[in-house]
Amino acid sequence: MLRIDLNADLGESFGVYRMGSDEALLPWVTSANIACGFHAGDPHIMARIVAAAVAKGVALGAHPGLPDLIGFGRRLMAISPNEAGDIVTYQIGALAAFAGRHGQRLQHIKPHGALYWMAETDSAIADEIALAVIETEPALILVGLSGGRLISAGQALGLRVAHEVFADRTYQPDGTLTPRSQPHAMLNDPRLVAARIARLVREGVLAASDGTELHLAVDTVCVHGNSPDAPALAQAIRETLEAQGITVCRLDLP
Amino acid sequence: MLRIDLNADLGESFGVYRMGSDEALLPWVTSANIACGFHAGDPHIMARIVAAAVAKGVALGAHPGLPDLIGFGRRLMAISPNEAGDIVTYQIGALAAFAGRHGQRLQHIKPHGALYWMAETDSAIADEIALAVIETEPALILVGLSGGRLISAGQALGLRVAHEVFADRTYQPDGTLTPRSQPHAMLNDPRLVAARIARLVREGVLAASDGTELHLAVDTVCVHGNSPDAPALAQAIRETLEAQGITVCRLDLP
Amino acid sequence: MLRIDLNADLGESFGVYRMGSDEALLPWVTSANIACGFHAGDPHIMARIVAAAVAKGVALGAHPGLPDLIGFGRRLMAISPNEAGDIVTYQIGALAAFAGRHGQRLQHIKPHGALYWMAETDSAIADEIALAVIETEPALILVGLSGGRLISAGQALGLRVAHEVFADRTYQPDGTLTPRSQPHAMLNDPRLVAARIARLVREGVLAASDGTELHLAVDTVCVHGNSPDAPALAQAIRETLEAQGITVCRLDLP
Amino acid sequence: MLRIDLNADLGESFGVYRMGSDEALLPWVTSANIACGFHAGDPHIMARIVAAAVAKGVALGAHPGLPDLIGFGRRLMAISPNEAGDIVTYQIGALAAFAGRHGQRLQHIKPHGALYWMAETDSAIADEIALAVIETEPALILVGLSGGRLISAGQALGLRVAHEVFADRTYQPDGTLTPRSQPHAMLNDPRLVAARIARLVREGVLAASDGTELHLAVDTVCVHGNSPDAPALAQAIRETLEAQGITVCRLDLP
Repeated sequence: MLRIDLNADLGESFGVYRMGSDEALLPWVTSANIACGFHAGDPHIMARIVAAAVAKGVALGAHPGLPDLIGFGRRLMAISPNEAGDIVTYQIGALAAFAGRHGQRLQHIKPHGALYWMAETDSAIADEIALAVIETEPALILVGLSGGRLISAGQALGLRVAHEVFADRTYQPDGTLTPRSQPHAMLNDPRLVAARIARLVREGVLAASDGTELHLAVDTVCVHGNSPDAPALAQAIRETLEAQGITVCRLDLP
Repeated sequence: MLRIDLNADLGESFGVYRMGSDEALLPWVTSANIACGFHAGDPHIMARIVAAAVAKGVALGAHPGLPDLIGFGRRLMAISPNEAGDIVTYQIGALAAFAGRHGQRLQHIKPHGALYWMAETDSAIADEIALAVIETEPALILVGLSGGRLISAGQALGLRVAHEVFADRTYQPDGTLTPRSQPHAMLNDPRLVAARIARLVREGVLAASDGTELHLAVDTVCVHGNSPDAPALAQAIRETLEAQGITVCRLDLP
Repeated sequence: MLRIDLNADLGESFGVYRMGSDEALLPWVTSANIACGFHAGDPHIMARIVAAAVAKGVALGAHPGLPDLIGFGRRLMAISPNEAGDIVTYQIGALAAFAGRHGQRLQHIKPHGALYWMAETDSAIADEIALAVIETEPALILVGLSGGRLISAGQALGLRVAHEVFADRTYQPDGTLTPRSQPHAMLNDPRLVAARIARLVREGVLAASDGTELHLAVDTVCVHGNSPDAPALAQAIRETLEAQGITVCRLDLP
Repeated sequence: MLRIDLNADLGESFGVYRMGSDEALLPWVTSANIACGFHAGDPHIMARIVAAAVAKGVALGAHPGLPDLIGFGRRLMAISPNEAGDIVTYQIGALAAFAGRHGQRLQHIKPHGALYWMAETDSAIADEIALAVIETEPALILVGLSGGRLISAGQALGLRVAHEVFADRTYQPDGTLTPRSQPHAMLNDPRLVAARIARLVREGVLAASDGTELHLAVDTVCVHGNSPDAPALAQAIRETLEAQGITVCRLDLP
């Protein structure tokens, strides 16, 4: 049976500020990466998005970020591997408590923004994050870039991992993402995106920007939640996949 | 068998800043109220104090505060009961994750500073805190002012509670603490303090500032951790109590 | 000559978060109350709104708030009068520096949210704010509730002051604002609001919610910037007033 | 006439936390680099240190840092040059307001920690900081590493600059500081340090760790304020220099 998880970053509002389309995305995604108060989110936002996700049966995941609210966790910071482990531990715990109030456990953890990329480019950071995860909650699934350092770090410790591919980003021939600063970095056409993902799930192949066929492992596909087009994109992907007989479901189902 | 718990606020450093005498207090206290990053503490400080407390066998407790680092959580803020529940949930979870990394669970939760007093003067706040605690982790012991609103709120929900008396503060004839702004609010003489606590544990009686005998339930005695005299005070209390055959031990022992 | 200033709270975005309709309001208002980084705003947002306001000839004002980003500065905090003076000093200076980069000085200062109401209900807070203003920049105009404590405190020190009336709020017969928690607290009909303000400027009279005629001094009228209707409201007020021969202009013009 | 300025980082406390020996250093230094609330300091700390420095006749300088309180502004952050300019503008203004309350103006500005080193290694950052300074307050003296990028950037815009040498750090043969992670990075012997600085002021020569004679311009010498030895070191330097007929005075004296 072919299956895939569809994830999005949710709960990225803060205080009186609203971001993203949480309510519109929840019907389509199967896993929610929930901001934990460092780059976005606050205890009250977290309480609400956890309740909403639980109500929809969407799996809960921690989305820990750097302590940089002004920069939305997108600016690299020279934190040590130990510090990375500590902030991941803290944020997993904070979110897990809200899940606990609904009798739920977290399904996964996926670092946010600069922290994600720091882990993918620095194995010491990836290793400490994986260590923090397994010591904090060994049942958590560690989501990382398909074939990347977080995946390797998690596997080395015996964590369950999930290879991630980005639905709305283009890939370069070497398998890395096209930087957002370049044209054609983003994909906005729901039909095109859905077709790319369907092929990826069926054949394990994704076309790079020059047509090169990339062979990528994929367990979960990310739709960025803070684009206004995100709900339509998520819906298109889900409907296309399901129409092709692919099961779209959370990672922790048997 | 007469027994009592001895608690102190620990882990109240922040970043490069140091506060309190964590290392000097750990040999004498049996329960640690650990700051969780809102009024004091940060993920790295929390990691270190949890490791140190676990090494000494001191019970771990969450010490959640208001989001007011400049004011050290001592300034009242007009947060709603729901908001109080959310910040307590968040902070319990964050600390529990560090405990989990050592295979430990939290023993108790005690609100800090203004949040403690807001709960003791506003039953709606106390009720939401108790609700947050029981939904987040029903095995937690809720520590509150002896005979106060937190205790009542916890009991009403079936939480285990612990009546707290302050070792180094004087009490007014009506059973309330003498405000810090008044002279004689603080007690610094270790022998005097130890004798007062010993009598309290043995007889359930504490002398108010005018000599009135207050009848107070007591499960745990607080020594404030950020006074330089705190370690000597804690040592004196513990040695005096043990010399009188009173067992000084954490709350969660059978 | 009849004249009036029209002010709005601007620059209340933060980091990646957007709030309000700064660009749509700037053509209609004559004074901008700019958030200074405590309850909203950050250095980058401030740089942008100051540049935009200067380009439109809108007068710059500091809009200092409580250090409570999650609560948007709307939750009362028990800060001391001295602390109020310090946070006002800090925020005035921070904004003045951005104004200085454009060769501009600040025109006015108006406390935000809970800090505004704390000053209006506690003369000690009002007095310290006025002292902070006059010592920091004696040419600043202090904006406060018409006939209220900030006005009195400013006048007592010899500060120039501006009586403020809220365009989009209803008033109770005793001259206080109807709390937002009550129905009919807000006014949304641009024609009605414009007519009320026109009469206020011409006759010094504003009708309370029960029809009572309130006699209010008015130098500046506030349109709340973070309502989606704010630009239309500001435009209606401005056009109505100007059509009646009332000059709408900033406070610091001769 | 030989003259030199002696500077130290002051006002690096935060909330209830104390750091450094402000009171003990003020009698010996001539310029104070005052933290502005991003890496350390808060409005209340700033009010106090400004008052204390003014009382001693010590010149006031802004010491802006990265928005990283947990890391004390010592962790590199990938902020853009524009962002660097904005945070410098904000912090200069905030401190200048406290100076203004005493009828004083700021003498200088010196970036803190990682922001200082980012400017010294990235000319685009240095240029934007210099631009922020000259647009915010053109009379400010920009303090930077002797012969470094901040100095060049300031000179290119016509700012007055001050070459800085670190009293308590050793230099490598190439003129860079020995990293703190290495042994012998710090100098603690007051007599030795004083002799080194005296020679530097008299001859323009400082011995590197291998004995190489470095020729360094020097207008101001930094003593790090948060070492317990700092006051003794500052006193020794000042007394040694004055005994040799060198005038120790602030930068802005004619």
